[in-house]
Amino acid sequence: MSKLLDTLRQIVGAPNVLTEGDLSAYEQDWRRRSHGKALAVVRPASTAEVAAVVKACAETATSLIPQGGNTGLSVGSTPDTSGTQVVLSLQRMQAVRSIDRDNLTLTVEAGCILQNVQQAAANAGLLFPLSLAAEGSCTIGGNLGTNAGGTQVVRYGNSRELCLGLEVVTPQGEIWDGLKGLRKDNTGYDLRDLFIGSEGTLGVITAATLKLFPQPAARLTAWAAVPSMEAAVRLLGLSHQQLGAGLTGFEVMGQFALSLVVRHMPQLRVPFADLAEAPYCVLLENSDSESEEHARGRFEALLEMAFEDGCVLDAVVAESIAQAKGLWHVRESIPLAQAEEGLNIKHDISVAASRIPAFVDYADALLQAEIPGVRLVNFGHLGDGNLHYNVQAPAEGDPKAFLREQEARVNDLVYEAVAKFGGSFSAEHGVGALKVDKLQQYQSPVALGMMRAIKQALDPLGIMNPGCVLPRQEAV
Amino acid sequence: MSKLLDTLRQIVGAPNVLTEGDLSAYEQDWRRRSHGKALAVVRPASTAEVAAVVKACAETATSLIPQGGNTGLSVGSTPDTSGTQVVLSLQRMQAVRSIDRDNLTLTVEAGCILQNVQQAAANAGLLFPLSLAAEGSCTIGGNLGTNAGGTQVVRYGNSRELCLGLEVVTPQGEIWDGLKGLRKDNTGYDLRDLFIGSEGTLGVITAATLKLFPQPAARLTAWAAVPSMEAAVRLLGLSHQQLGAGLTGFEVMGQFALSLVVRHMPQLRVPFADLAEAPYCVLLENSDSESEEHARGRFEALLEMAFEDGCVLDAVVAESIAQAKGLWHVRESIPLAQAEEGLNIKHDISVAASRIPAFVDYADALLQAEIPGVRLVNFGHLGDGNLHYNVQAPAEGDPKAFLREQEARVNDLVYEAVAKFGGSFSAEHGVGALKVDKLQQYQSPVALGMMRAIKQALDPLGIMNPGCVLPRQEAV
Repeated sequence: MSKLLDTLRQIVGAPNVLTEGDLSAYEQDWRRRSHGKALAVVRPASTAEVAAVVKACAETATSLIPQGGNTGLSVGSTPDTSGTQVVLSLQRMQAVRSIDRDNLTLTVEAGCILQNVQQAAANAGLLFPLSLAAEGSCTIGGNLGTNAGGTQVVRYGNSRELCLGLEVVTPQGEIWDGLKGLRKDNTGYDLRDLFIGSEGTLGVITAATLKLFPQPAARLTAWAAVPSMEAAVRLLGLSHQQLGAGLTGFEVMGQFALSLVVRHMPQLRVPFADLAEAPYCVLLENSDSESEEHARGRFEALLEMAFEDGCVLDAVVAESIAQAKGLWHVRESIPLAQAEEGLNIKHDISVAASRIPAFVDYADALLQAEIPGVRLVNFGHLGDGNLHYNVQAPAEGDPKAFLREQEARVNDLVYEAVAKFGGSFSAEHGVGALKVDKLQQYQSPVALGMMRAIKQALDPLGIMNPGCVLPRQEAV
Repeated sequence: MSKLLDTLRQIVGAPNVLTEGDLSAYEQDWRRRSHGKALAVVRPASTAEVAAVVKACAETATSLIPQGGNTGLSVGSTPDTSGTQVVLSLQRMQAVRSIDRDNLTLTVEAGCILQNVQQAAANAGLLFPLSLAAEGSCTIGGNLGTNAGGTQVVRYGNSRELCLGLEVVTPQGEIWDGLKGLRKDNTGYDLRDLFIGSEGTLGVITAATLKLFPQPAARLTAWAAVPSMEAAVRLLGLSHQQLGAGLTGFEVMGQFALSLVVRHMPQLRVPFADLAEAPYCVLLENSDSESEEHARGRFEALLEMAFEDGCVLDAVVAESIAQAKGLWHVRESIPLAQAEEGLNIKHDISVAASRIPAFVDYADALLQAEIPGVRLVNFGHLGDGNLHYNVQAPAEGDPKAFLREQEARVNDLVYEAVAKFGGSFSAEHGVGALKVDKLQQYQSPVALGMMRAIKQALDPLGIMNPGCVLPRQEAV
């Protein structure tokens, strides 16, 4: 092992092979559920260095854990406790390699922080629409490795849909340059999408060519109180019809989730929080290529139609950017308000939008019947059928004991309900090490067989992020 | 072999195992470049029958050639001349299984003709936007198998982007049900996109869940004369900026291509065909979620800006649906006008939009210098960087002799130029059997290595469409 460390020091320079001191930022996951121990944290500065590091590790059959901002929620980028795995941090690879305005593309290195990618696009007068809570610290490589979603998916798609090409270091330490910024390219199997969402188990994403969009002339935000989840889904349909591709955000929030924001962030103004006949509120965003006036007119026409239909009880359209940011801030404060309230069990599930109302009815009733005192914090990206259907410990009693005794059961109940409605137990957070058993349980055996075959074919030594996505296997 | 035929007859019924009579519709490709001989053409009616057919073939290591409408342009769906391969026709699997308006999804079987898919969506008041010349006879399974593109990609993406889930029969005859209509689902490797574009070499697509969109309130078409390819690219940028997602079509046509339409289809009105200072015309489509009046206003504002900029010399906006159809008809008549003019060499290339002007300058000059009398029929989907950069035999001389002597050389010159500009030799038509050698020549060796490993992992017997995409290999 000390020979490997010497080799790694030769490749990236001794200061970039970390073996001592507090490495917890690399060794434990974002939610601090897993505390690993690395052989070393290696920080290459270039694709060639990444390739050399992977080759050196392959020669000694040493496992590698690719890591970006380490903000994942499914424990997919931290080492196990063996002290034998190398954390491969991409954080030094931050370059914006090129921007092509006429082609609407941007090429960046994997360690580029998402906010900096957004900024590079904005500096060129263009939009990179991927947006999510961790954007100030997550990296684009991690976003692509986990196919991150976020709040703009209803219009622009997940990370997958925003990527035209990748540069990847294979488990053999070879460099695949697939960075062409082409919108049509049917020359063989789609390797790009195989690496996207594979969570570092098939290779290391080192750079990406991303799609850019024109900056909209105006972005307006509205907040609507709705009488039921059915009404929220009806409002979604009306919004698609009336705004077309102008609909860039559609978030739903249950009143209990909002009440936690009211309780723990009293400085925030939460519209319609006291409207008893509205169990949910919806945040809508309308992006317009014409003007703010036009956007406002379209929004008002939509809301008028929705009032007449009965799917909206009351609504406000933000009058200023500050007001719009305030509304988004309420939505984005729910996870923190939940944490302030105490321990909770998080889910990241998706169901066809049409089946969300029936799913929520079913799952709410099931959990309330099975787990006394349970409190449901239901919010998420309804436009994508994606709910963070979270469960807060009961107001009374010991929350730690609740989690210890009930977490597995709550998960089983929620995931069984999701499966019953044809949904997914992991919509946008990935599988990581956390949900490997759930993948085995809920993914089709035929699909799992193909996944194992692909893993074996591309990483026969099993050195790339072993135990993430698929169960760890002995090398054949 | 007669035992296999008996088994196949038991599975699909004797009338659906064709071995006699004129089978040329199944055995030769659309452009009649390849004339094969099948052991049998088998026409299953259900996914279970497809699975049983594949199992029976796998047991005898018999090759299978999945086939939809057999309209492909790269010889990817016909048997070789050995008389040992089974053509697996999906044409009897035409059902529209379900439509989900609130989820904006449609589930159809692979043999459903594209026009019928479009119609099923329209009947529900919704839009399935994939649109291409062969839509009256191609099938959605073939569209997905080849990741077909077409005329609406600038807004809606290729077939890949329009598909949420697949049902696939594996080379082992197992059924993978991946038909969830979810917009977010990060539960393992992206098998869907691996099958899309794999041209039947990894399994058989039997059904798909597709994305639908609201029908736009209005669709307007304009036709603009531009002074250069640079100006066309500038117009593309302005159109993105001004119309946003309203830009649903952006086609470029060289004046020589249009002159062939004028010559061979004198009944068609071709605007600006005699405008000497305009080497190209552009067809633009603007889809609007509001109204025709609004669409017209946006189009006029765009064209006014473009006149001022100088990137448009003259333009018309169609006043009626009939006029709009007339303009699209001109664009779509170019391939037929080319055929009327005589023999020609077709290409389907893509280059970053920003590099298209320099590419065209370079390739035009190269071909004119190297191939005396060559005539360039240049048209295509500029919004996607995709040109059908075709070469018509010289006006004088024997066109058959020209093709015989020059086709390989013309291809080499064009593909070398494409490679020099970082483009793709197959933008939307796929590799098929026709371009297997080009894939070996121009695709990255690292990528080819991964493709071979995936093929070997999923189809170890090598029975699925052997010799398509990748060179035929001996079973290991």
